[in-house]
Amino acid sequence: MVQLRKWRPLLKLDGAQPQASYRKIIEGLVSAIVEGRLRPGTLLPGTREMAQLLNVNRKTVILAYEEAVTKGWLISIQRRGTFVSTQLATGTVTAPSAKLFVPALRETPAVAYFTQGEQVTALQHRRDALFFDNGACDHRLLPQAVLHRYYRNALRNSFTTNTVRHGSEGSGHYLRNALAEMLRHNRGLNVDAQQICLTQGVQMSLYLTASVLLKPGDVVVVERLSYPPAWEIFRQLGAQLVTVDLDDEGCRVDQLDELCRLHNVRMMYVTPHHQFPTTVSLRAGRRQQLLELARLHDFCIIEEDYDHEYHFAGRPYLPLASDSAQRHVIYIGSLSKSLGSTFRCSYIVAPSNVIEVLERTAAVSLGQGDAVMQRMLADLINDGELKKHLRRVSREYRRRRETLLSCLLDAFGEQISVQEPEGGLALWVKFADSIDVNQLAEKALELDLVVRNGRLFSPFGHPENALRLGFASLNPEEIRTATQRLAQAAQVVGEQLGRTLDERRSCEG
Amino acid sequence: MVQLRKWRPLLKLDGAQPQASYRKIIEGLVSAIVEGRLRPGTLLPGTREMAQLLNVNRKTVILAYEEAVTKGWLISIQRRGTFVSTQLATGTVTAPSAKLFVPALRETPAVAYFTQGEQVTALQHRRDALFFDNGACDHRLLPQAVLHRYYRNALRNSFTTNTVRHGSEGSGHYLRNALAEMLRHNRGLNVDAQQICLTQGVQMSLYLTASVLLKPGDVVVVERLSYPPAWEIFRQLGAQLVTVDLDDEGCRVDQLDELCRLHNVRMMYVTPHHQFPTTVSLRAGRRQQLLELARLHDFCIIEEDYDHEYHFAGRPYLPLASDSAQRHVIYIGSLSKSLGSTFRCSYIVAPSNVIEVLERTAAVSLGQGDAVMQRMLADLINDGELKKHLRRVSREYRRRRETLLSCLLDAFGEQISVQEPEGGLALWVKFADSIDVNQLAEKALELDLVVRNGRLFSPFGHPENALRLGFASLNPEEIRTATQRLAQAAQVVGEQLGRTLDERRSCEG
Repeated sequence: MVQLRKWRPLLKLDGAQPQASYRKIIEGLVSAIVEGRLRPGTLLPGTREMAQLLNVNRKTVILAYEEAVTKGWLISIQRRGTFVSTQLATGTVTAPSAKLFVPALRETPAVAYFTQGEQVTALQHRRDALFFDNGACDHRLLPQAVLHRYYRNALRNSFTTNTVRHGSEGSGHYLRNALAEMLRHNRGLNVDAQQICLTQGVQMSLYLTASVLLKPGDVVVVERLSYPPAWEIFRQLGAQLVTVDLDDEGCRVDQLDELCRLHNVRMMYVTPHHQFPTTVSLRAGRRQQLLELARLHDFCIIEEDYDHEYHFAGRPYLPLASDSAQRHVIYIGSLSKSLGSTFRCSYIVAPSNVIEVLERTAAVSLGQGDAVMQRMLADLINDGELKKHLRRVSREYRRRRETLLSCLLDAFGEQISVQEPEGGLALWVKFADSIDVNQLAEKALELDLVVRNGRLFSPFGHPENALRLGFASLNPEEIRTATQRLAQAAQVVGEQLGRTLDERRSCEG
Repeated sequence: MVQLRKWRPLLKLDGAQPQASYRKIIEGLVSAIVEGRLRPGTLLPGTREMAQLLNVNRKTVILAYEEAVTKGWLISIQRRGTFVSTQLATGTVTAPSAKLFVPALRETPAVAYFTQGEQVTALQHRRDALFFDNGACDHRLLPQAVLHRYYRNALRNSFTTNTVRHGSEGSGHYLRNALAEMLRHNRGLNVDAQQICLTQGVQMSLYLTASVLLKPGDVVVVERLSYPPAWEIFRQLGAQLVTVDLDDEGCRVDQLDELCRLHNVRMMYVTPHHQFPTTVSLRAGRRQQLLELARLHDFCIIEEDYDHEYHFAGRPYLPLASDSAQRHVIYIGSLSKSLGSTFRCSYIVAPSNVIEVLERTAAVSLGQGDAVMQRMLADLINDGELKKHLRRVSREYRRRRETLLSCLLDAFGEQISVQEPEGGLALWVKFADSIDVNQLAEKALELDLVVRNGRLFSPFGHPENALRLGFASLNPEEIRTATQRLAQAAQVVGEQLGRTLDERRSCEG
């Protein structure tokens, strides 16, 4: 038996109001279901009783019930009555069907690169944990009040103009102009807005560019140590990867000629300004040679210039793309190292016919960007605020680099070898064989310190016993503590090695 | 002959300062080049002269010149001297090499859909132009002060916590929880955060989902009238498209069984809540039938619910994905219709194993999202601000819909047929044969009115003589003006038709 008394308050229908219409009944019912006041499986009063109760025509209740059944809130079972649907309550999206089933991706190096394991994830929630990252900037140094003001203005602007109305088209054009000006002035790239395509991050720029340029079977040259997520993009697009060596003048361009004779090379992916991960700047002679080989063998160069803005030794190198004679370089940059990774803005510089194809491909697969943020970034560039911010933090990052270098040398002395890079936000620190970085990274984790194991960057062999230590996101005090923890970890590893050697000796003896 | 006098001010080197070091010389040189004070091709003074001029050791100047040459700012020509590089000035990124050359994309329907032609683009900059768009919301109704406050808090939050530091991982989790709660309460989807994957727009969600699920040769079913950019994604991934008809109860699910017997159907793409572009809601019986067919033939359903929040007729339908028995639906939603397209946030609801693959694929090809915005959106949802905003604008949009409907009926009467949709932000208006919408759209453009021609939505045949008229982004006054312009355009088209008929008659006569 359905208790009639409870229904009026349950449906929040005021009997005093005569126009308890068909729609009101439905709304009352659905609210009660959604808010949990009406449980799944509950039998509803019959239409006649409900009509009496609510003081409406029975037809009104019938219509209301019918619509609620139609829309899935109620179910009607013949000869038993109308119930609150039970489909609302139990688990919906569970195991997929056979065809919907997607096989788990295999554990690629790129996956390992991104997911550093549960222990690292756990440490992200610990206040006392410290991270030597890949070379991120310090969000604590962002000009909070400035960003805030510019966001407000960009937002307001979007109300009074058509900027937002027409998607990111207007604001995108505005930002591309600002970037073109910046690239012309600071990086010697003679570009205008028509040669720039915007995306929402370097990863997206790389993917978009590669997907437009590569066909399955194409050969892509990468450096022996490089950025695994880029490799993964090329691999996923069906490309074959071949590697060149690296030394302390950058990549061994001399090996490239040979490679081009062996393979039909379509593309080379490089980070010449501060090689990722080894931080070495590609020397001038090799730059010329690389461009000449690209001409000779007609391959295209993807030049990723991820932290051009941080160059501490004199003036930065000009990008390969600034060479006026070249017709082979596609240049990828980003604002993530300037303003932090929350500002999702990367750009691709390429000939305008290539840009056109990139734009159209992006329109279909990526959609548009954030118009307010684009406006905000353009304003920050045009008003010189970005430059001002970079000048300020560069001084601080240089100081942090020196702090880390001296801390490392104090703590490790002869056990490490590190070349002071000309720029960038990380050091590439090679360890003596007596300290295995796999073990070191593991021990460091126990001391609440996360480091980027150098082996992550050489997924297909030739690993180096090194760490890439980003110093910019830690303040000097944190750098000192982090280095102490690293030294502590190294000591444990060393002692273990000592014991192992002792044991081996005693076994042999 | 190089004039020596000019060099000191040109390089902004103060002779009074004795420590005009090697680095200062380089910086002076590069600034002069970048700022245009030193032109490309200019011959520099010899090292000896420059040393005298600047009152430094000649060795210092040699070092400075050498580094500037190394880095591409200067070139040194034997027996002639050192010059400002000419490579800086002339066009850099121009015509690409043969291999870099990317063939222009063919004019696909999706391209036509996005690029509506130069005339439309031109009108975007005209203040008096009016746009009947696809059904965008009105940015002018956004709660500016609220958004601004939430942005500030999210930004501040990113300084004090590790949210931003660890990319969008933390904020993403936070937003996924907020969305899960919202979907459970408002849409009957029994999901938790692990069943949600975030992207930066519906287009990206569609692309990501399709790229994970589809293999070349797979058959995808779409409705006869649909969203061309989605079709383009399927086509680009190598899928074969087959269509089903539509009527005033939504898509003809009855035709689907036959299609599944003829083809090995892998996927169906639908917008059942308010069919795009025709605005019809898929009726309950057909919903059940569709889910049963998916079970029977084991295909997966991509349910895009692009404007669930705007439902004016009673309570909204529950999504297909809310059916507890189904294991075949992948659900795609977005916040773009709630807060405007500048808030780049879409979400995919799928079984957690599918989500895992989507996440990993996204990590490689799309990169991470905007952590500050994710945090901001989650806060807006959790604090009920989003709901409050939607309640407010829904009332207004309903009013605008009624305004448009009555304006249209006043102006066109019998010449149009329009079904009042149960929700959404657009009307699907069919015109009598006497008014050809191609001509109508063209004439409207001359009167500074942009309309979405219904033929854009049926790229592969069976076009309808209809317009999709989004009403939400225009206020009532603008709606009245826009409808007047449309009526004016129709009159011109009608008169032309009349003349043509008269001429034909007089020829025949």
